[in-house]
Amino acid sequence: MKTRNAIYAQSGGVTSVINSTAAAVIETCAKSKKIGKVYAGKNGILGVLREDLIDTSKEAKSEIKKLIYTPGGAFGSCRYRLKDFKDQKREYKRLMEVFKKYNIGYFFYNGGGDSQDTTNKISEITSKLNIPISCIGIPKTVDNDLPYTDNSPGFGSVAKYIAVSTREAGLDVASMCETSTKVFILEVMGRHSGWIAAASGLSKERADDPPHLILFPEIPFSEKDMLIKVKQSVKKFGYCVLVVSEGIRKKNGNFISDSDRKDAFGHQQLGGVAPRIASIINNSLGFKYHWAVSDYLQRSARHIASKTDLKQAYALGKAAVDLALSGENAVMPIIIRKKTKKYDWDIGKIALSKVANIEKQLPKRFISKDGFSITSSCKKYLLPLIQGEAYPPYKNGIPDIARLKKTLVRKKLKKFNI
Amino acid sequence: MKTRNAIYAQSGGVTSVINSTAAAVIETCAKSKKIGKVYAGKNGILGVLREDLIDTSKEAKSEIKKLIYTPGGAFGSCRYRLKDFKDQKREYKRLMEVFKKYNIGYFFYNGGGDSQDTTNKISEITSKLNIPISCIGIPKTVDNDLPYTDNSPGFGSVAKYIAVSTREAGLDVASMCETSTKVFILEVMGRHSGWIAAASGLSKERADDPPHLILFPEIPFSEKDMLIKVKQSVKKFGYCVLVVSEGIRKKNGNFISDSDRKDAFGHQQLGGVAPRIASIINNSLGFKYHWAVSDYLQRSARHIASKTDLKQAYALGKAAVDLALSGENAVMPIIIRKKTKKYDWDIGKIALSKVANIEKQLPKRFISKDGFSITSSCKKYLLPLIQGEAYPPYKNGIPDIARLKKTLVRKKLKKFNI
Repeated sequence: MKTRNAIYAQSGGVTSVINSTAAAVIETCAKSKKIGKVYAGKNGILGVLREDLIDTSKEAKSEIKKLIYTPGGAFGSCRYRLKDFKDQKREYKRLMEVFKKYNIGYFFYNGGGDSQDTTNKISEITSKLNIPISCIGIPKTVDNDLPYTDNSPGFGSVAKYIAVSTREAGLDVASMCETSTKVFILEVMGRHSGWIAAASGLSKERADDPPHLILFPEIPFSEKDMLIKVKQSVKKFGYCVLVVSEGIRKKNGNFISDSDRKDAFGHQQLGGVAPRIASIINNSLGFKYHWAVSDYLQRSARHIASKTDLKQAYALGKAAVDLALSGENAVMPIIIRKKTKKYDWDIGKIALSKVANIEKQLPKRFISKDGFSITSSCKKYLLPLIQGEAYPPYKNGIPDIARLKKTLVRKKLKKFNI
Repeated sequence: MKTRNAIYAQSGGVTSVINSTAAAVIETCAKSKKIGKVYAGKNGILGVLREDLIDTSKEAKSEIKKLIYTPGGAFGSCRYRLKDFKDQKREYKRLMEVFKKYNIGYFFYNGGGDSQDTTNKISEITSKLNIPISCIGIPKTVDNDLPYTDNSPGFGSVAKYIAVSTREAGLDVASMCETSTKVFILEVMGRHSGWIAAASGLSKERADDPPHLILFPEIPFSEKDMLIKVKQSVKKFGYCVLVVSEGIRKKNGNFISDSDRKDAFGHQQLGGVAPRIASIINNSLGFKYHWAVSDYLQRSARHIASKTDLKQAYALGKAAVDLALSGENAVMPIIIRKKTKKYDWDIGKIALSKVANIEKQLPKRFISKDGFSITSSCKKYLLPLIQGEAYPPYKNGIPDIARLKKTLVRKKLKKFNI
């Protein structure tokens, strides 16, 4: 059989280590000598649909290596979900057209739950049409909400960033609290699950260490309970550090940040959860406060990426290619935590049909009874994921990054409007 | 003459390297063998007034060494300004009483402009009263607004953090901008001067690199000009990264963040500059946006401290003790940039009377003509300050920190109420 080519595409919110997975796919394909070109979709699946295909063989090998140090999505990512075949026939047909034209035998899609769903749908159709393509999903999400895999690449690094930042900012607040800020609020990502917020708990080694309160999306927000805890913490320690997930909700299910308040000009009041919580605390208890919203800084913080996370991101990219070459289809490589005393992990696989549309929540046993901190079993789970520092090289005082040429192939097909 | 003791105190907003200065003072005093005990004021000058004195000789030497890796103010800091002698006689008398009781020959005060003013006032009074005490100010401020010194310890590390974060978050936004966020706003510290905002410009190596706009407090904020630039940037690059100083003001001198808006319940609308700017852009141009406020995370980010900054923080602490031992009084050691081609620096000194109450603004020649970026001479000034990474040791995935005992001396004086 003629050597066939591969398409790799990044999907959904990017991470600080997704490019490490990209490097692994490209490098493993090249090493195998069984796969021809690796095309990368420009801005994810959109690039595949539009025939905006980046020929990765035009990049210097040294730049591909640098991807390991480069956060963001080097080939571009997108938020674009393919619906069912019956609703979006035109898109699926176009994909098949592109696959055929470019002699694609391997499709690697690097994303979260939605993207695994898309990969699964594509594989169903290629199977139905007897098009022999290995469709392999590769996990990626800072939210850590993919099922079956012990954890998802991208999460360990955000977890490390948040744990480090909580420790550092906590020391700052502790030293100033007598005459200045008494309450500090750090808002972290996590629209539906509290994995990232939980990671802040790793900075607490002693009873008086921050964070003093974590607000999880899994626990309905109670203003009263929070205020009691904040007051206690300020009384006991002189200050209070709260880590707040952006996704916390009231008992009625509304997000705290979905404000029903409007300003004097009738505009929706903008702003995250942190300023809202600050306002509640200030209005009730009068404490001087500061708040931080690290937003994209947390998920792009390659400078403090977890070495474990980085290794796993690479290993999963490599495993995806190995699975494809061994004839697998419609699967996703996963991380399996070994039952050893010292943390160790292995690569397994799961059928994409099982992964699609399940969100892994923070288990109840990971949250303390009062709902404001993490348990020791949660710590035990999280701790290995933030181990090791994988510093990037620096140039002129800032991290050196890959600068890809992103040479697009000359188009052979008709224009496709999305 | 009998060996005399020293008092060291931290003042004002803390930094990621102020404890390195503390370690230098304590270690240099010990090495000199000419100074007895080093007492540290608990929570700065308040501790001196209250006789809350930490006996640093009770700390293990290894913990003092760890201060070099520990952000925040290890002995506590405060925002408390001593007024003129005629207005605050009681406080000054108390200080003299404490100095006398503890046989203090050396007073080291580690802070910004206000603290240097305080140190100067104390030295004037000790001189007037013929109390032989060396009063030495030691510079520290993330704002970099102290005059005479080429730069201030703490600033280089924040500058590095902001430059690194701008690069990283910029890559994130670039990869998602087609279908997601088009405008990203990072709010940084700097109430009166744009030094920190300027540092973000170090991440721009190519014309299309972020940041695409910097908003400085030195340039009156023009909504119209900003919107034109944002629109241009999104058109040209597909996205726009803005770095915004918290201190930007309208032409009438009002801070942007001093909102005159109130929410529907009559509460002052809370929130920083970033959400306000986001709101202005969204209302006029409709772009999807994200914003981040790094707040204390930036000034406590010891994990990505500048090696140059850390070295200078230590060197200034050591120099302070050396100056005191050589009989100097009412001076502050400063950083002098040598006129060499390759960046090099030396330690000098300046009279405290000259330092007090001057704020060093970002010079006009450091800001581009259009007011939205930095010039090459600004880059030339800033670049050496962020060079080198001074990584702390890690334990369990997060930075290891000093855990001081902070043993207070047994009080000998009457209680003093502040």
